[in-house]
Amino acid sequence: MQILSQSQSHGGTQTVFRHRSAVCDCEMTFGVFLPPQAKAHPVPLLWYLSGLTCTHENAMTKAGLQAHAARYGLALVFPDTSPRGAGVADDDAYDLGQGAGFYVDATQEPWSRHYRMFAYVVHELRALLAEALPLNGSHGITGHSMGGHGALTIALRNPALFRSVSAFAPISNPTRSDWGRRQFSAYLGDDEAAWAGHDASLLLAAHGWPGDILIDQGTADQFLDQLRPEVLAGLIASRRQPATLRLQGGYDHSYAFVASFGEDHVRWHAERLLAA
Amino acid sequence: MQILSQSQSHGGTQTVFRHRSAVCDCEMTFGVFLPPQAKAHPVPLLWYLSGLTCTHENAMTKAGLQAHAARYGLALVFPDTSPRGAGVADDDAYDLGQGAGFYVDATQEPWSRHYRMFAYVVHELRALLAEALPLNGSHGITGHSMGGHGALTIALRNPALFRSVSAFAPISNPTRSDWGRRQFSAYLGDDEAAWAGHDASLLLAAHGWPGDILIDQGTADQFLDQLRPEVLAGLIASRRQPATLRLQGGYDHSYAFVASFGEDHVRWHAERLLAA
Repeated sequence: MQILSQSQSHGGTQTVFRHRSAVCDCEMTFGVFLPPQAKAHPVPLLWYLSGLTCTHENAMTKAGLQAHAARYGLALVFPDTSPRGAGVADDDAYDLGQGAGFYVDATQEPWSRHYRMFAYVVHELRALLAEALPLNGSHGITGHSMGGHGALTIALRNPALFRSVSAFAPISNPTRSDWGRRQFSAYLGDDEAAWAGHDASLLLAAHGWPGDILIDQGTADQFLDQLRPEVLAGLIASRRQPATLRLQGGYDHSYAFVASFGEDHVRWHAERLLAA
Repeated sequence: MQILSQSQSHGGTQTVFRHRSAVCDCEMTFGVFLPPQAKAHPVPLLWYLSGLTCTHENAMTKAGLQAHAARYGLALVFPDTSPRGAGVADDDAYDLGQGAGFYVDATQEPWSRHYRMFAYVVHELRALLAEALPLNGSHGITGHSMGGHGALTIALRNPALFRSVSAFAPISNPTRSDWGRRQFSAYLGDDEAAWAGHDASLLLAAHGWPGDILIDQGTADQFLDQLRPEVLAGLIASRRQPATLRLQGGYDHSYAFVASFGEDHVRWHAERLLAA
């Protein structure tokens, strides 16, 4: 792994790494925050998956999570949202191609060679971080918007790998959303049976989650029609799924919303990841 | 004032305004955070002046100060660092012209028409905010790098207008620095007597400050040669100026440094601005 930048932050260290990804078949960039506690002992890791158009950098610089992670003793990782580079397929739309990987493993051309963000996060990057960083093997996952979709779907499909899960304004039902149908069709093909493994509402309905789930959603979010929180909320209630779903009055879809509730999410994960 | 964007944040409101500045003779943009307390009663205002190359936006999105301002009940304002626009003089260098106003009132061509950031902050923007926002008239000021220079020099010259002052890695002695001499020569002319009113070390030596001062400086700062904290530190000691000067081990010049100590600065100002 190559270090692109490194700064001391909140008594810990904020580092941007680049590495050659075998899974995505390109160079990938990600940010890591190690809290001061990591100098003394291995720490849990909280994954933060970002939304459409973001790189590894947006949440790392805008969400303010490092202060809370330093307080509670969690490491943070901020992966990129897609493969990138001149040789990587792309689309003119902001919500397909580079910056819009949707945390799936594409099976269709021209996407299948590089767009494998699900396997990248769950397997390759997880293994790389386990080897390179002082982690204790306890993982939580969160994310915003497309990244909230990624956090929920990755956790729901891998309950043995993640002990805690939360989301900020997640795309909750992408198989019935403009943020989902077009992309799943492009990446996964027109057979909608292949989409079900990437829809948090369908996964929750099918499998539930062994722990509890925290979801925050702003009531002034500009994208409520695409996010469809009512579908996931209904399933949480009807399945009797332990969860805290908060409709936060007046908040929109921006990082101001994420930053406003970041401390609550980091504490939520810390309480579950640091428990014996 | 025109509202360019507005988001709820930490129970308060983050707004970006644009207005016609008579002092700078151009459109000026700035960010304001109003804490939740401002809905109930007028609040103090903490000014945050930004550094070279920044706009109103960098600290607003990266420094994480809103969380602390919401806790303590302070409003924040993030002015731009210079006049801007197609008709505004500029220079190819990053440290002269747009993005590099140095918080002075230029007297030289081609700068004197627009580059009047000292008067803009102290008089025009202050009056505008007093009229437009629920402020109680108690003002503090801080800033980073060039903005730390601005905060210190503006406060030291206006002790009746600002009750509290702090700085992050300020340019401390610009009349003896590469970050100062070239710009003061361009904006103020070659008579160095005109520069003394914009050098925190010279101002402190001449006038002191009626309260105490908080300054944080990272020991791994890439720009220590230009910042010259040792000059200001020596004067603080020799003048017996009440102050807290902290050399923070391992921190560089980035927003990771500002964010790491932002809470301390907001609390410092709150304790002084909220005192009876």
